[in-house]
Amino acid sequence: MTATLSLVSIGPGSLDQLTFQAMTAIREAEVVVGYKSYLRLIEPLLAGKAVEGSGMRQELERCSTAYRWAQSGKQTVLISSGDVGVYGMAGPAYEVLLQAGWRPGSGVTVVVIPGVSALNACAALVGAPLTHDFCAISLSDLLTPWPVIQKRLEAAAQADFVTALYNPKSSKRTTQIVEAQRIFLAHRLPTTPVAVVTAAFRPEARILLTDLAHMTDPAIDMETTVLIGNASSFVQAGLMVTPRGYGNKYDLKTAGLSLNPVPSDPDCGAG
Amino acid sequence: MTATLSLVSIGPGSLDQLTFQAMTAIREAEVVVGYKSYLRLIEPLLAGKAVEGSGMRQELERCSTAYRWAQSGKQTVLISSGDVGVYGMAGPAYEVLLQAGWRPGSGVTVVVIPGVSALNACAALVGAPLTHDFCAISLSDLLTPWPVIQKRLEAAAQADFVTALYNPKSSKRTTQIVEAQRIFLAHRLPTTPVAVVTAAFRPEARILLTDLAHMTDPAIDMETTVLIGNASSFVQAGLMVTPRGYGNKYDLKTAGLSLNPVPSDPDCGAG
Repeated sequence: MTATLSLVSIGPGSLDQLTFQAMTAIREAEVVVGYKSYLRLIEPLLAGKAVEGSGMRQELERCSTAYRWAQSGKQTVLISSGDVGVYGMAGPAYEVLLQAGWRPGSGVTVVVIPGVSALNACAALVGAPLTHDFCAISLSDLLTPWPVIQKRLEAAAQADFVTALYNPKSSKRTTQIVEAQRIFLAHRLPTTPVAVVTAAFRPEARILLTDLAHMTDPAIDMETTVLIGNASSFVQAGLMVTPRGYGNKYDLKTAGLSLNPVPSDPDCGAG
Repeated sequence: MTATLSLVSIGPGSLDQLTFQAMTAIREAEVVVGYKSYLRLIEPLLAGKAVEGSGMRQELERCSTAYRWAQSGKQTVLISSGDVGVYGMAGPAYEVLLQAGWRPGSGVTVVVIPGVSALNACAALVGAPLTHDFCAISLSDLLTPWPVIQKRLEAAAQADFVTALYNPKSSKRTTQIVEAQRIFLAHRLPTTPVAVVTAAFRPEARILLTDLAHMTDPAIDMETTVLIGNASSFVQAGLMVTPRGYGNKYDLKTAGLSLNPVPSDPDCGAG
């Protein structure tokens, strides 16, 4: 009667962005629970399983539904798009389970399976914008007071973080992205590169490179991630790149033209 | 004579954390280039391929080596651990290629394949710490002046970001993590949860939950990621969780005990 509840990251949307661990968990599941639109993204994997789809306002219900299926002894998967741990269902799921008295090691086993978050996916499609310090900020103010979000935007802008804006705009929520732009313009040049990526790795994907002055011009919706570069980010040949710092210290030209060892950083985190 | 150079994320270290796209690129490659220790992580995939391993100070050389193999017509993969776009080789690779005169659409095709970065991997192992706004800061000051890093630490601390510290400490670089702790203690309670995760998803993985007051006590090295919670993060039953905000607005207890629909946020980004 004990089973595993796997909180599974399905990545940005195409099946080849799932990890093997995620794919295995879904294949072995008897029950898959998720937001309807995300279940559609993994439809080829769902044959023969009980599937519990629900709508956008039912995150907590999905958590309790998944928990009950696992309690009943079924191998259960609860999915999130992107990474289940990044603005995803891992948080609400643990909150609901702990509140319901669940504890690790007693009854249901819970596993979090990480994945490719929107910021990783979008970065890959536009070049290498996240090669230096970055932050992720959700512009949705329904569960977070706007002054908190505003403070984070200010901090990110003034400390020169590359910044990924999640949930930048919805049909009802349209002013936050304009305010974010205003805050960044107070600290960064209008020519700072900005990538606006919608539905990354899906057939309908849209990828746009623009700049801070024009970042609110393209169509932006809840499937969009906006990546604002730092003061060193540049666009060249249609690619957005944030230098890691090598260019300051070493002769990139030599590196590009020579096979001799080039001195670099033993400690830089790139590998 | 034209080939693809794939910049491939191999994830935190175990093969089941690779995406299908990453695995396919490696399987189809004739040449695999990478840092020796990371090549070892994917050794079972390398049979029959030309393998170019090099050491820690040779990031730029690896980029030019990989580019030359691709120019010679070989399907080539350049690997990074974690996500190739997050403090990884995608940045230096594009910098070297652009400097060498490469342009998209001319000759070598370059593809970035995203993956599971250290912060996603570590978060999955400790609970759900990244369910709200977060930032990543590298403490390596070899390519970034320390005052820039310090400013980012200050900004992250005062604006209450969950914070992932990359490259927290090496054998030669030991003071930065202490300074980071000092900066955070000026803005957050000493009891703020901190996760210290080393070699996530590898056989030698070490996972420790501690708090801000004690975060420099555990062994920390270049394979460690340190996750500092925000003011709402909590530890319960050995899990570190950052609430998304649901708990403030809705009755989690009801959600955990009932299958009735629970009102939630149409716009929260969790799905």
